[in-house]
Amino acid sequence: MNKRLMTPGPTPLPPQVIKALGQQVLHHRTKEYADVLASLSSGLKYVFATDYPVVTLTASGTGGMEAAVANCFRPGDRVLLVSAGVFGDRFYDICRCMGLNVTKLDVSWGKGIGAAEVLSHLTGDEKGVIVTHNETSTAARSDIETIGKALKGTGMFYIVDAVSSLGGMEVRPEDWGIDIVVTSSQKALMCPPGLTFLSVSQRAMEAARKNTSRRHYWDLCKAVDFLSKQPPQHPFTPAVNIVMASLEAVSLIQKEGLENVWQRHKRMGEMAREGVKAMGLELFADEKYASDTLTAVKVPEGIDGQEVIGRMEEDFGIIIAGGNRSLKGKIIRIAHMGYISEGDVLDTLKALEETLVGLGRPVDAGKALAVAKTIMDTGGTKQ
Amino acid sequence: MNKRLMTPGPTPLPPQVIKALGQQVLHHRTKEYADVLASLSSGLKYVFATDYPVVTLTASGTGGMEAAVANCFRPGDRVLLVSAGVFGDRFYDICRCMGLNVTKLDVSWGKGIGAAEVLSHLTGDEKGVIVTHNETSTAARSDIETIGKALKGTGMFYIVDAVSSLGGMEVRPEDWGIDIVVTSSQKALMCPPGLTFLSVSQRAMEAARKNTSRRHYWDLCKAVDFLSKQPPQHPFTPAVNIVMASLEAVSLIQKEGLENVWQRHKRMGEMAREGVKAMGLELFADEKYASDTLTAVKVPEGIDGQEVIGRMEEDFGIIIAGGNRSLKGKIIRIAHMGYISEGDVLDTLKALEETLVGLGRPVDAGKALAVAKTIMDTGGTKQ
Repeated sequence: MNKRLMTPGPTPLPPQVIKALGQQVLHHRTKEYADVLASLSSGLKYVFATDYPVVTLTASGTGGMEAAVANCFRPGDRVLLVSAGVFGDRFYDICRCMGLNVTKLDVSWGKGIGAAEVLSHLTGDEKGVIVTHNETSTAARSDIETIGKALKGTGMFYIVDAVSSLGGMEVRPEDWGIDIVVTSSQKALMCPPGLTFLSVSQRAMEAARKNTSRRHYWDLCKAVDFLSKQPPQHPFTPAVNIVMASLEAVSLIQKEGLENVWQRHKRMGEMAREGVKAMGLELFADEKYASDTLTAVKVPEGIDGQEVIGRMEEDFGIIIAGGNRSLKGKIIRIAHMGYISEGDVLDTLKALEETLVGLGRPVDAGKALAVAKTIMDTGGTKQ
Repeated sequence: MNKRLMTPGPTPLPPQVIKALGQQVLHHRTKEYADVLASLSSGLKYVFATDYPVVTLTASGTGGMEAAVANCFRPGDRVLLVSAGVFGDRFYDICRCMGLNVTKLDVSWGKGIGAAEVLSHLTGDEKGVIVTHNETSTAARSDIETIGKALKGTGMFYIVDAVSSLGGMEVRPEDWGIDIVVTSSQKALMCPPGLTFLSVSQRAMEAARKNTSRRHYWDLCKAVDFLSKQPPQHPFTPAVNIVMASLEAVSLIQKEGLENVWQRHKRMGEMAREGVKAMGLELFADEKYASDTLTAVKVPEGIDGQEVIGRMEEDFGIIIAGGNRSLKGKIIRIAHMGYISEGDVLDTLKALEETLVGLGRPVDAGKALAVAKTIMDTGGTKQ
């Protein structure tokens, strides 16, 4: 039985993507492959809503985060890093490993951050600011738009981890002044895991060219230069089959239309939140910062979160995620990103309701589904 | 038409591998995936002929080379690097990017190196020695066994780039004293590109734990520690589909038997070399250092190497490689590694013969095939 991955990555692969993946490998220095890479890169510009070059590296999103740091900063550079959960903390670890003088601005788990708070923590010495768009461990988003607009003209580099948002939530590198947006293939972009994609501003490129930080595989200048060649190439052997599969996935987003994709995610987020609330459950994240791609739900007193997850998989074939670290057993996380439809969200709500009832939790039967269905039918709140 | 990749990576994927690749993605924190990873890691120990842990990182072989350097050495450390071609030079670039004080020992292209020459270039200050086993740009191998045995007990770290040899040529990490063997998925191992595999000695692990070099994604201690967990994991999201495909590929090697696989490559190498010589062509690499996985052939005076390659692909669907850098147009490289049989080598020789005749080069018709067939039938020189 193929299980449904309502997890925040990897997410289910569309059949077209699976088909493209399961093919004989192409040599990466052929014209045929160069055509694939050219189409993928142009498609990635579309989904990143940018004219900046978007490079494809063979690595996980964590590798992409390391690449962003290694190119924009030098050891000793002071940066302000906002952490609102596990993945903010991971970016902090990367900065420390890379020798930066990093100040961590801790945001309460379940909340996001806006421009005012970031500005109030700047000392004037920072070379850059790093923010997680959508914190996967808490399902809270930060307002990367106002932060970026407030940082414009300061000369600082602004790096955004959009690993669990890009392709499902609006991101606009130029308008929002983001020097590097990092994402990975296996979340809202519906591609198999194994690639990280980064949009790189001219300003970041110019700084990277003068930067002597220790990097080779993560050299974004080399990656951009190879991508600009005719025909385009990568400096090193890419994960060819994943690149071919990713082209299919990105084409699906192009066909649906990026604004429609964002709207679908917004609608699914609303359905999930209103649905679980109608079941009498409480959201983990402050709704002011609600994510469109992921919903975290507090597990009611007396019920074991791991048990909920186990039964959802066992009885309904639906895989959802638990909480990280101190939240283990205390929250469940339902992802609705990528190749996921409103119908999948309804099925998940139904499965959750039945699971809770099975565990002895009284639930107002059918209410969650009715609420979610209404949102689906009316199209949800427009952006 | 599916073309035959007689190139030194990517190499053709067996049908079982393609099938495993083209499946719905698994979540990487499930038991099902952990079972795959456990089997792959145990299979990799078999093909690496080692009891050291073999870690799987999502990156190309170049990334694996960077990881080896970042874990064994610190900026300023002195190392001796042997370069016998383009990929030795790449390892040199990596060492320089990582801040090492690196002495490059240049070996004439087409030749390899043994223990005596390496020892004679050591000053006593070196923290390590780095050697390319099989130089993909020239088809010459170095004698990594005698070098490793000579370095035993010196306290130096010995790193071997076995990217285009491992799985096709004998490598023995413990016996030969190799601290880190780096390879990548898409060469003799018959896996899709996108993964790099590294065997890591206890000594290298202990040093890496005390090493403060800047690395995060490349942290081999973390990779080994996660692999030792029950169930085994990766620190970061792996390229799940490629891992699943790689398990199939490694299983095929286990079924054939590693010694048989080495013997097949040795036989194919002999067939290719004797075959081209019987066509009146000259080998590029000194036969003393002949590779089992790859044969480089000088293009005869008056014939354009790129034309040979183009016709081989156009008329016979066989893709071979040209020369790198100054060798472009001057040599052709025929790979016989991975999912390649003696029959593929015969077909390639036949296609090359016909191509040369078509380009006006007189060739003793059928002689190459006869010579190669004899080697195939008699099993070639035993190891």
